[in-house]
Amino acid sequence: MKENEKMMKRTSEFKDNETKIVKGNDLKVNDFKGVKIIPLGGLEQIGMNITAIEYEDSIIVIDCGLSFPEDEMLGIDLVIPDVTYLKDNIEKVKGFVITHGHEDHIGSLPYILKEVNVPIYATKLTIAIIENKLKEHNLLKNTKRKVIKYGQSINLGCFRIEFIRTNHSIADAAALAIFTPAGIIFHTGDFKVDYTPVFGEPIDLQRIGEIGKKGVLALLCDSTNVERPGYTMSESSVGKTFDNIFADYSKQRIIVATFASNVDRIQQVINSASKYGRKVVIEGRSMVNIINTAMEIGYITMAENMMIDVDQIKHYTDDQLLFITTGSQGETMAALPRMAAAIHKKVSIKPGDVVILSSTPIPGNEKAVSKIINELSMRGAKVIYQDTHVSGHACQEEIKLIYSLTKPQYAVPVHGEYRHLIRHAELAQSLGIAKENIFVLSSGKVLTLSQEKAAITGEVTAQGILVDGLGVGDVGNIVLRDRQLLSENGLIIVVISLEKYSNQVLSGPDIVSRGFVYVRESENLMEEARIIVEKALDKCISRNNSDWGKMKTEIKDSLSDFIWKKTKRNPMILPIIMEV
Amino acid sequence: MKENEKMMKRTSEFKDNETKIVKGNDLKVNDFKGVKIIPLGGLEQIGMNITAIEYEDSIIVIDCGLSFPEDEMLGIDLVIPDVTYLKDNIEKVKGFVITHGHEDHIGSLPYILKEVNVPIYATKLTIAIIENKLKEHNLLKNTKRKVIKYGQSINLGCFRIEFIRTNHSIADAAALAIFTPAGIIFHTGDFKVDYTPVFGEPIDLQRIGEIGKKGVLALLCDSTNVERPGYTMSESSVGKTFDNIFADYSKQRIIVATFASNVDRIQQVINSASKYGRKVVIEGRSMVNIINTAMEIGYITMAENMMIDVDQIKHYTDDQLLFITTGSQGETMAALPRMAAAIHKKVSIKPGDVVILSSTPIPGNEKAVSKIINELSMRGAKVIYQDTHVSGHACQEEIKLIYSLTKPQYAVPVHGEYRHLIRHAELAQSLGIAKENIFVLSSGKVLTLSQEKAAITGEVTAQGILVDGLGVGDVGNIVLRDRQLLSENGLIIVVISLEKYSNQVLSGPDIVSRGFVYVRESENLMEEARIIVEKALDKCISRNNSDWGKMKTEIKDSLSDFIWKKTKRNPMILPIIMEV
Repeated sequence: MKENEKMMKRTSEFKDNETKIVKGNDLKVNDFKGVKIIPLGGLEQIGMNITAIEYEDSIIVIDCGLSFPEDEMLGIDLVIPDVTYLKDNIEKVKGFVITHGHEDHIGSLPYILKEVNVPIYATKLTIAIIENKLKEHNLLKNTKRKVIKYGQSINLGCFRIEFIRTNHSIADAAALAIFTPAGIIFHTGDFKVDYTPVFGEPIDLQRIGEIGKKGVLALLCDSTNVERPGYTMSESSVGKTFDNIFADYSKQRIIVATFASNVDRIQQVINSASKYGRKVVIEGRSMVNIINTAMEIGYITMAENMMIDVDQIKHYTDDQLLFITTGSQGETMAALPRMAAAIHKKVSIKPGDVVILSSTPIPGNEKAVSKIINELSMRGAKVIYQDTHVSGHACQEEIKLIYSLTKPQYAVPVHGEYRHLIRHAELAQSLGIAKENIFVLSSGKVLTLSQEKAAITGEVTAQGILVDGLGVGDVGNIVLRDRQLLSENGLIIVVISLEKYSNQVLSGPDIVSRGFVYVRESENLMEEARIIVEKALDKCISRNNSDWGKMKTEIKDSLSDFIWKKTKRNPMILPIIMEV
Repeated sequence: MKENEKMMKRTSEFKDNETKIVKGNDLKVNDFKGVKIIPLGGLEQIGMNITAIEYEDSIIVIDCGLSFPEDEMLGIDLVIPDVTYLKDNIEKVKGFVITHGHEDHIGSLPYILKEVNVPIYATKLTIAIIENKLKEHNLLKNTKRKVIKYGQSINLGCFRIEFIRTNHSIADAAALAIFTPAGIIFHTGDFKVDYTPVFGEPIDLQRIGEIGKKGVLALLCDSTNVERPGYTMSESSVGKTFDNIFADYSKQRIIVATFASNVDRIQQVINSASKYGRKVVIEGRSMVNIINTAMEIGYITMAENMMIDVDQIKHYTDDQLLFITTGSQGETMAALPRMAAAIHKKVSIKPGDVVILSSTPIPGNEKAVSKIINELSMRGAKVIYQDTHVSGHACQEEIKLIYSLTKPQYAVPVHGEYRHLIRHAELAQSLGIAKENIFVLSSGKVLTLSQEKAAITGEVTAQGILVDGLGVGDVGNIVLRDRQLLSENGLIIVVISLEKYSNQVLSGPDIVSRGFVYVRESENLMEEARIIVEKALDKCISRNNSDWGKMKTEIKDSLSDFIWKKTKRNPMILPIIMEV
């Protein structure tokens, strides 16, 4: 609590004549009565979604996602948010309200629940996916959770939260209308407007309009596709493409790779398979998990004997088989890439196979996806990746529609990289929202809103915590810098045994290298290096310099100079002195 | 020569009932008289361009490019081709014939010329760029080179090679008509069809038609954009966008980042600057180099006092300044990213600046480009990256046009990843080329062509050679695997001093780690690890096991097990035993 108060004090006067892009600690506004919006996802780039909404003694947390590591986070498995603020205010925290079941919205729950154990509220499929996750982490028993239906409201502290139907690339996505003492906050979650969804209903535009009519204080709206003009295509358009492909390639095996969580997409694939008399084989751990979960709660349906085990494929001909697999993003360990590399135990790609990649590369995965397309092509497969996917996020016209229905007093673009949030701010402005009422927030900023006033009134701890194996937060910048250095040039270890007291060299210097050069072909270089180290040692000893620290520095510097001159490389150099 | 003969013998019967996708050594065809096409660029993915054309005792080499390392080639600076085949046949090699001045077509020359020192033939700008490169490597004096004009022919051995004007994203790009005793080979180089280029003339379609009329044996055509329907836009369309942006942002500083080699693009930017009364500041080493080179030979022109030094910018107001910089691909060390990160010595991005990214991300650079857009936006710059670039490569309709003009007997798709070559093969087939006359070649395959017959008749060495600092080829798979392992989990070093003969432990075990965990917070773990190692040592000694190899294995295995159990990580473990 004290930490928090200290944070809150770091505030100052507020310039309100331009779009509020707030970074750093240049804030000087006194706190005032209102509802607070505090994004806690740590990274500036597309990050995990977790936002605290606070009013007096009530806090609710919208989503609890994880983020995948940036390229420079070598060896890191995933990144989770720092929830110090929630821990410091644990008595206020009433629950997690989750918009949908994607990793960047639920993935950190198993880690965060250990420290912030409050109930979880979400729609049916979302809860089912979360339960899968909790089971794996042995947390199911100790976590309260509640399934909420569209249109239903829950009361948490001074908040009432209504779940509203939207469309997205996962079923059961919800927008949230958060009724607070200061006014209504409308959070879209991740959404698109699909007038003709294949399953379920279109987004509940009527209810959004009705809430808009009541008066919306702030709109927190998805920014992912804000750079794209027009509308995102309906999910049903993909089904037509699938049908065409199944018709065109009626003799071949068909393999469809897509995101496991896209149950509507998977249902469409199953429908095409059913129409063309194919059995369905599911491959990839997350695909099996989610399909089972979705079937259990009736979100995916298929004829009873339609799904077969991979071991049964020998009983069927190519034209009777459809595979649904993971790996559409080229993830090395997923099913499709293993099939393409012929290291999958049960299925190998063969000439004539038709592979449908039903996803577009997530930024950063472009090369991996291209690689899998190349590999599949080399094995003689026909790879189809055009018109086989639609986005789950709203484009410009859909975002404008939500603004027109909600007519918010304040706009807070969410979910996107900084470039998207800024573009969203411009779009909001073009719709008539005053520049000073639009807030692009960095993580940790505390935005306080009332009908009279809006300002950044503080800042709380909010950064990414790196998870590597079982270690949460034990890999920091020093470790990452070492990994970076090691990855670029490898290392050279110099070991020496010195006699106690006399500092006489008893053994060594021995030189060992890894990741530097192929040693057998560089024997001369390593021998020269040994001589350089001997000279450095002699120098220290002749100077009567028995400080090991200085000795190590001398060895390091002279060896580093030598190696750079000879190779223009900078391996890590690690002198180790043993006292015998 | 012997190596070559041996290679040539590895041939076998040829299946000619399908598109020739030839990999591996499953070839059994006897050699026959014809012209040979041998791609030598090593990588399967988009690689360096270097192709040998051989007929009896004459070889010419088309282009000599380099490739940038794949993600898994940690620490590697660049990749060059293995030209063992050229060295083995050096007396046949008549010269390098270069299509244009991009790195993937000329970048390896400084390395390869040291071993294959034959004359270079190219157009004016191409030669000028190559000369820059040779100067840097101190090779200018010993390299013969000749400027060839469009329409001009050279005779090399039994070949006559005519240079034909094309359009591309660098000036002076040429297609090559190679007149061989077996027929004409038409090589497009990298090209597009620009009917309204801003400078120079459109591609010489008339001459291509005329050569087609004479009869083309084989067409080697650019595949880069073969997945895109329609036509690539004209370069002149970008000029209009620039003019509009300059008009819209007449008060702000404008910064344009683009590829240094795109001199036509740069000229258009300069023209807009001239029209709107701005001085031009050039930033980035390669940008300065190429603009100077291009100005020297009259390929870029501007008013005499228009270019100013960066130190003079303080004398001008924002609306009087235009910067042209490198870094449009987000390259960390280039000018624009340094400006965005505020580590550029002379220029920092400030709110209101307008930054135009005049390039699209090269596959693999998407995240870096997104990062620079985010960083620039955070500094308050307006970043414009839509409609500010056109591709330099032909789309489907343009490729079809070249096929229709040349009507080749054989098609050999070049320049692209495997997915593009395969798509190109399909396109060629749709244009009426028989499947058996289309060859998708992997590197090192020898394709022999005559008017009667076509077959893969051999295979030569062709792979990428990794360049790391001054080392060419001294980093191989073992070193890369070590770097990978080190980058993911770091390493743990165990040092022990043993007494000679008795094998008594005199000092240690000491444990040192780098890139593994932050040690100060993991003291317990490291102490436990030390105990594990001591136990392993005791076990060996009690068994009277004095084999150091076995001792090291024992230490490694037990420590590795322990660390995995405790952390679920796999650091490299490196036991070092010193004998005292």
